[in-house]
Amino acid sequence: MYDTLFRHPFMSAAGLAALEASEVVAAMREVELALAAEQEACGLLPAGTADALTAALPLAAFDLTALAAEVENGGNAAIPFVKQAKARLPESLRRHFHRGATSQDIVDSALMLLLRPRLAALREHLACSRRAACALMRRHRGTPMIGRTLMQQALPITFGAKVAQWAWGLESADARLAAVAEGGLYVQFGGAVGVHSGLDDQGLEIMAGLAARLGLAAPLLPWHTDRQPLLALMGALDAAAVAAEKVALDIALLCQSEVAELSEPAAEGVGGSSSMPHKRNPVACARIRAAARQVHAAHATVVNAGAQPLERGLGEWHAEWAPLLDGVLLVEGALGSLAPLLAGLEVHVDAMARNLRLSGGAVLAEPAARLLGEALPSATAQRIAREAGETARREQRDYAEVVLAQPEVAAAVEDATLDAAALRTALTIDLYIGSSEAQVTRVLMRLDPS
Amino acid sequence: MYDTLFRHPFMSAAGLAALEASEVVAAMREVELALAAEQEACGLLPAGTADALTAALPLAAFDLTALAAEVENGGNAAIPFVKQAKARLPESLRRHFHRGATSQDIVDSALMLLLRPRLAALREHLACSRRAACALMRRHRGTPMIGRTLMQQALPITFGAKVAQWAWGLESADARLAAVAEGGLYVQFGGAVGVHSGLDDQGLEIMAGLAARLGLAAPLLPWHTDRQPLLALMGALDAAAVAAEKVALDIALLCQSEVAELSEPAAEGVGGSSSMPHKRNPVACARIRAAARQVHAAHATVVNAGAQPLERGLGEWHAEWAPLLDGVLLVEGALGSLAPLLAGLEVHVDAMARNLRLSGGAVLAEPAARLLGEALPSATAQRIAREAGETARREQRDYAEVVLAQPEVAAAVEDATLDAAALRTALTIDLYIGSSEAQVTRVLMRLDPS
Amino acid sequence: MYDTLFRHPFMSAAGLAALEASEVVAAMREVELALAAEQEACGLLPAGTADALTAALPLAAFDLTALAAEVENGGNAAIPFVKQAKARLPESLRRHFHRGATSQDIVDSALMLLLRPRLAALREHLACSRRAACALMRRHRGTPMIGRTLMQQALPITFGAKVAQWAWGLESADARLAAVAEGGLYVQFGGAVGVHSGLDDQGLEIMAGLAARLGLAAPLLPWHTDRQPLLALMGALDAAAVAAEKVALDIALLCQSEVAELSEPAAEGVGGSSSMPHKRNPVACARIRAAARQVHAAHATVVNAGAQPLERGLGEWHAEWAPLLDGVLLVEGALGSLAPLLAGLEVHVDAMARNLRLSGGAVLAEPAARLLGEALPSATAQRIAREAGETARREQRDYAEVVLAQPEVAAAVEDATLDAAALRTALTIDLYIGSSEAQVTRVLMRLDPS
Amino acid sequence: MYDTLFRHPFMSAAGLAALEASEVVAAMREVELALAAEQEACGLLPAGTADALTAALPLAAFDLTALAAEVENGGNAAIPFVKQAKARLPESLRRHFHRGATSQDIVDSALMLLLRPRLAALREHLACSRRAACALMRRHRGTPMIGRTLMQQALPITFGAKVAQWAWGLESADARLAAVAEGGLYVQFGGAVGVHSGLDDQGLEIMAGLAARLGLAAPLLPWHTDRQPLLALMGALDAAAVAAEKVALDIALLCQSEVAELSEPAAEGVGGSSSMPHKRNPVACARIRAAARQVHAAHATVVNAGAQPLERGLGEWHAEWAPLLDGVLLVEGALGSLAPLLAGLEVHVDAMARNLRLSGGAVLAEPAARLLGEALPSATAQRIAREAGETARREQRDYAEVVLAQPEVAAAVEDATLDAAALRTALTIDLYIGSSEAQVTRVLMRLDPS
Repeated sequence: MYDTLFRHPFMSAAGLAALEASEVVAAMREVELALAAEQEACGLLPAGTADALTAALPLAAFDLTALAAEVENGGNAAIPFVKQAKARLPESLRRHFHRGATSQDIVDSALMLLLRPRLAALREHLACSRRAACALMRRHRGTPMIGRTLMQQALPITFGAKVAQWAWGLESADARLAAVAEGGLYVQFGGAVGVHSGLDDQGLEIMAGLAARLGLAAPLLPWHTDRQPLLALMGALDAAAVAAEKVALDIALLCQSEVAELSEPAAEGVGGSSSMPHKRNPVACARIRAAARQVHAAHATVVNAGAQPLERGLGEWHAEWAPLLDGVLLVEGALGSLAPLLAGLEVHVDAMARNLRLSGGAVLAEPAARLLGEALPSATAQRIAREAGETARREQRDYAEVVLAQPEVAAAVEDATLDAAALRTALTIDLYIGSSEAQVTRVLMRLDPS
Repeated sequence: MYDTLFRHPFMSAAGLAALEASEVVAAMREVELALAAEQEACGLLPAGTADALTAALPLAAFDLTALAAEVENGGNAAIPFVKQAKARLPESLRRHFHRGATSQDIVDSALMLLLRPRLAALREHLACSRRAACALMRRHRGTPMIGRTLMQQALPITFGAKVAQWAWGLESADARLAAVAEGGLYVQFGGAVGVHSGLDDQGLEIMAGLAARLGLAAPLLPWHTDRQPLLALMGALDAAAVAAEKVALDIALLCQSEVAELSEPAAEGVGGSSSMPHKRNPVACARIRAAARQVHAAHATVVNAGAQPLERGLGEWHAEWAPLLDGVLLVEGALGSLAPLLAGLEVHVDAMARNLRLSGGAVLAEPAARLLGEALPSATAQRIAREAGETARREQRDYAEVVLAQPEVAAAVEDATLDAAALRTALTIDLYIGSSEAQVTRVLMRLDPS
Repeated sequence: MYDTLFRHPFMSAAGLAALEASEVVAAMREVELALAAEQEACGLLPAGTADALTAALPLAAFDLTALAAEVENGGNAAIPFVKQAKARLPESLRRHFHRGATSQDIVDSALMLLLRPRLAALREHLACSRRAACALMRRHRGTPMIGRTLMQQALPITFGAKVAQWAWGLESADARLAAVAEGGLYVQFGGAVGVHSGLDDQGLEIMAGLAARLGLAAPLLPWHTDRQPLLALMGALDAAAVAAEKVALDIALLCQSEVAELSEPAAEGVGGSSSMPHKRNPVACARIRAAARQVHAAHATVVNAGAQPLERGLGEWHAEWAPLLDGVLLVEGALGSLAPLLAGLEVHVDAMARNLRLSGGAVLAEPAARLLGEALPSATAQRIAREAGETARREQRDYAEVVLAQPEVAAAVEDATLDAAALRTALTIDLYIGSSEAQVTRVLMRLDPS
Repeated sequence: MYDTLFRHPFMSAAGLAALEASEVVAAMREVELALAAEQEACGLLPAGTADALTAALPLAAFDLTALAAEVENGGNAAIPFVKQAKARLPESLRRHFHRGATSQDIVDSALMLLLRPRLAALREHLACSRRAACALMRRHRGTPMIGRTLMQQALPITFGAKVAQWAWGLESADARLAAVAEGGLYVQFGGAVGVHSGLDDQGLEIMAGLAARLGLAAPLLPWHTDRQPLLALMGALDAAAVAAEKVALDIALLCQSEVAELSEPAAEGVGGSSSMPHKRNPVACARIRAAARQVHAAHATVVNAGAQPLERGLGEWHAEWAPLLDGVLLVEGALGSLAPLLAGLEVHVDAMARNLRLSGGAVLAEPAARLLGEALPSATAQRIAREAGETARREQRDYAEVVLAQPEVAAAVEDATLDAAALRTALTIDLYIGSSEAQVTRVLMRLDPS
């Protein structure tokens, strides 16, 4: 299918393998068998039923092609799955299978089962990115570069401080993913209309027991048409997508030929152009940005389908499945691209230094005017600060030197109303990095306190 | 992959078959070979080159698995495709292949080629829906039913008029699809940066010739980062999705157990519930609504990626592919479900009649008050009109009779200030159908003028 | 402006009053003055500066019209605000104002200040809804009604159980809002490029001190282009919107003329139609649904603008403001409509009972077949279960009685292979409510443990 | 309200003035009076009614504040509008007012009336942009600059060709706006349920007559819940937003300090920073991008609300109003910013020339290798092409000269297997501009054929 060329390249191979249709069926089977086991433990089913069902329903018993072909008829995958299972079961076992359950119980619970290892994979990718970011922060804690606002050169930061921003954004997203992974993947079990018809109050106990058997969280209530758990999940996934997208955007901008402060890791066959052999395209950034955009849309689909009518969505529920699985695999793809991107990122310190000096020092005009203003009339201070930038750039001199050479400044230094050393420090662009290093320290203490 | 269970059931089998990865590669191959043929015709390539390339590059020459695995490296499918092709070509032909082209030329043009038959399929489905809708309109031109606003009973319409609304919405969408299909599927050919580098002005002629060979429209300019053509395409697809979604929403509401004016066509094995054998679920409606929601998101993705930087998107272009193909197949699925839904729709005229009388005639209070107000004091007219509804419902009598039996009304009829016959006509709910029949006639004249 | 007719009716009056432009300016002023106070406390500014600034810059000093007119020039509201302030300040104070700050510090922090009371208002509305929902749950814990899946009658629930679902969805959203309100409204303070240029490490302390003075949370780092905090905020707002939208959807469906199980509270002048005096439109539901849809779009805007370039968004930041404030006020409007809707909801228990019997008992065919199947052959059990529904509906008899009257069943009861009393209990529709009551108890214990 | 600071700066002042609440009421009044006039002309109302209504209902008769305050109750603006009007009318006129109309007729038609001049304004802005773009194209038809793909330097284009792309994108959007403006702003008139209840077939004639009186298009049918016309409108608006956003994105990228090929027009007080006097921010680009993002969301809202239930939306209709008006004003703001941006754009030809040489000529390696490959072995050709780039950059020499100086090349020139003059032309970067000039010519012929 076209997916292999147009969607899967933005996903992770491991994630795709784990979401083969056979894995989906395996997850539905796991839910049904755990349900039978729990009901047997509660005395609702005869002893031995779960084992008998397990034996009678090996995964290989299911015909995936036929199953897929029939989804359309009933509208969801559980209906042909249950039908195939029942067709294979002897009469005596048939009525014990899928007891008290409805399609949504099976599909939702299976999806949560399938998502559990995917969230773990996302978090592992984030851990790799964290390690790579920490290494960059340590190495470039004090590497000055120009900060840019509205994409214009503004004032210096350090590259370490920039990475700290990236890392903290990723960490914030990871905290949301962790909350979902650790307590937000809920089992679904409510029966036809969410009230355990035919099971009465025992239904709630079975719901809890089923959750425990499957390693999922037990909700307070079935969540058939209360999709808050999915909103939290998709929100967390999309937060991770945004965090990765921010990094990719910054890297792509800093890889521009004219900026050239960063390059994506060089690798044989990666980033080439079909027509221009000289280029090294920021392909990982493009992939991440493409994936993130699609995650936003998946998120919006789930949100727009969030209000589901009465006791079952009429299309709203059905609209969640592909966006949910696409979403998680696209985030996995993005984070899986991000980790090696950060680990192998080429940092061109010389280009950072060159760009920092591009304006000659005009970027320092504001602090210069402020400092000079402590001793000189405000208008004079501003004029000197402004003109010095022009001069420094034209004559390729250091901004601080140009300022200090102005007669009014020299006079003020002479009579000690200005402190030349302090001024020189403040107006040297490499030193005007504010709290950059402290910011790096802060983030490292949180991410890598060792 | 999970798609077979969670995405494909909302698509059409024919559409999926036509978008196998091998078909994508075939389309890319078709573009390249047509390009070579055109360049040969222009004298840019030696005579016989196109035939030689065609012979040297049978579709079977491409290793789909390897190709898919390499998309990630370069970021798009054309790069490994061109690489595989060149690896197979003798030195003498290699430099004639992909001449003056860039990846985006191949991918965009191939996508347009793949979309052409899909748009035709959509329009064929719409034609089927049109035929079914026309039959319903003819049959139910005058079948009265209650109209509902904010889902409350309001005033009568006819079922034919409702179908006319559906049909005209679908027709509006079809007009947009037709415009795209007939002149909006543009070839892409601009070379590395969209200006036919190395081909000079001849590039524009080749672009036009290539379009002609492929049966695509020739754009004024290459549209590498002018995505207006895609916006028009996705907008038209989504318009069709909305038109189908509207029908599905109405049908689902009218299928509700308590309303029961419509049923989805009965079919063996369709619409069953895994736990409740008595139900006939509006599964086609659910599928259509689920598909349409996902099309909206696909559309939004393309719109949000519409502004692409400089001469090539950095993720924006890449984010279009899956939404575009998903979008068209989901619309095809929705329209493919809609046509048989309309063709086999069960219309319960008796339920329509029953529901029409649910309020006794309270829905006629406003016209009654207005008509009575022509002879009686306004307050009196309104009181009679309002109370008659209650009485009619309680006593199961006809609203017009109850009104005419009021002393003030009887007196006015007596002295001929009110015309009993006119009043009876106006207050008989089955007759208060406004322009319903004329609307049906209008739409039939447009859709089926025979 | 058109807002008063087309947007504000979906918002809350209190919220709108609190977000007058003058309140925005007051919030920006509060941020600047708190910054000066903090810098004075740190020794960065001379003693008395903050008081002097406060005195020199009364709120009345700002010309709102001129300020609004100039936003366009600089791109944000802080620029003309600072300009107006500085123009009014004496030279000696001017350089102490906005010291080390940038526009984004002022705007973001002011927005967070403005949002704090709004989140409190949202949570108060949710508390009102919770109280109303708890009252409904207590009153209707055991009120049976039909549950509906895909909008078709399925099996019974109780109205209390439905309300429990609503309440728990709202509670889940409230938990997200609480987390944001209590620790997620972060001060913004980072200076021109987010690294406290000119303030060095002290910048981080000032950031924390400023947060404390303003009653906002102190972030680990400035979040100029790390918009994770906003994603969490908008996600929580939208979760509340979805939770309210779900309730409104259910109520609107249950208010339908043919269902009539609920009515919106009657109030003079509310819900009327301009043309049909008999109608009582579910206007609160319409308002809530309209608001929620717009919140989803606001959310999507913030998400799509989440990845912001380098040290300041180029349009991405600017695109957040209106959606953020619209979003919070629309949610406030929705929740402000929801609380009285729940408090005054008219519950038509008789209609619930009537609809429950609509199918005669066909909805019980599955449990009947299952129970009978314990003693009778499966095919026989299914036939009896199915036919009894038809009979019960046609003859207006009780489903359980019809079943028990079947010869095969009577025989089984006779020979004690079936327990008549148990069967009668299980097949009486009012009693087949599963865990409904236990679900209500669960939710009441969490929401109203008194 | 906060709008003045956070939303209106992205809109146009003229547009805002034309959408004051009083203008909305004026438009509703115009619709009602035209309806009365049409009904009088048809003989439905007594002669003189329309004049009497006009006299009795001066615009000043409406209390805007009270009207706005009551929208919430009925859910739309027409209800309190009609109520205020009727309260003022004498009994004899009252029943002739709003005859056969429903709220949606009045609101939808009024919105279309309000949109008509706005679409004209948009198109006027686009005409200004077209003129500015044509001037730029003429001036810079042959101004070479580097083309960039994935934001990496690729091959040369001309600035004129880039502007041609922008202009053609804007023109495509204008064509969609023109289609809507000229035939897609439909009157709405269908009465309570869209079938002209009480007016019978005459309703369709009145609909057409009303359209003619208002200068709106006459639809085939009322479009109460067939929102295809709105989809076409919002799609066209968003196409214009995307076209403007593309230009703003390109300009912002080319304004970057390190690229510096363009500057936004200099203007007193525009584009300043609150903390950095040296900056000239691309504020118009930021505004356009911020506006466009919000238009996308408005569009998505309308699309997601496109399927409206039965004969009136329950929140879906209500959700359209603000997005529709916001949308049109945001596009007007964006296009209103774009025209002067293009007209005053500063083009730094020297910077374009400098950046073009940044790689020394490495960008020409592919054509060089291809040309040399006609005479030399492929591997040799590629080596020379690649190494020459390095040499040219290091030694600041011309790429063509470096290539020609290679012994293998010199030999081939000597023996005439390579043509030095042709080679020099092809490898001189300023000349390798493909069809750039022809593209400009093409677009100028379409946009400015004079």
